[in-house]
Amino acid sequence: MQAPHPVQLAIEAADRAITAEDFDALLDFYAEDATLVIKPGLIARGKEQIRKAFVAIAEHFEHKLVVKQGEMQIVEGADTALVLMETLLEAGDLKINRRATYVFRREKGVRWLCVVDNSYGTDLLNQW
Amino acid sequence: MQAPHPVQLAIEAADRAITAEDFDALLDFYAEDATLVIKPGLIARGKEQIRKAFVAIAEHFEHKLVVKQGEMQIVEGADTALVLMETLLEAGDLKINRRATYVFRREKGVRWLCVVDNSYGTDLLNQW
Repeated sequence: MQAPHPVQLAIEAADRAITAEDFDALLDFYAEDATLVIKPGLIARGKEQIRKAFVAIAEHFEHKLVVKQGEMQIVEGADTALVLMETLLEAGDLKINRRATYVFRREKGVRWLCVVDNSYGTDLLNQW
Repeated sequence: MQAPHPVQLAIEAADRAITAEDFDALLDFYAEDATLVIKPGLIARGKEQIRKAFVAIAEHFEHKLVVKQGEMQIVEGADTALVLMETLLEAGDLKINRRATYVFRREKGVRWLCVVDNSYGTDLLNQW
């Protein structure tokens, strides 16, 4: 059996941190100047804005948000990983499926950090 | 009017190079160790393999391939750009629409190069 890609392990741990509302642990997976797509047309840039966005998201889902991964594909090139992933958001009776796109960079050739977090994937196109 | 993002200009020029079968010009847009998804489950890694793939693609489409861009969204974070783009492939009567995902890196803080080229976008999921 192939060992899981380190980016897969990072995503699983980050999603557990979202569910646990452990924002210190969560932010540790992001590069300093990373970008998070909060919703189409609205982005957070940098750890401070990203933390605020996750606090607001937790409140929006009334602290019931559970994030799980479906199928994941990782395409790696030049110390960069493009992640295509089915992401499952649950909050009480609400269930949302998305096909997310994330980009990770291998910092100093060692640790993978998220630089672009776009859970909307290609649905960001034609949003009007 | 906002000036076009340099990544948009690079993609437009690269697509013109594909149509013109100018592989020297085309390869100039890729990082040395970039990855191209040729089709689900088949990737080319590095400039030599990517060049061979584009030569094979040109032959597959009987040298009639024209590549155009539809809507494009660029999400930038940490010197990295995630591109979500409608791509239109035409070859004679054949027309193919895809929602592509590309990743570009700003090399030495100046020039943007493609590091992951996945024209299948999130359709790479559930391909079996």
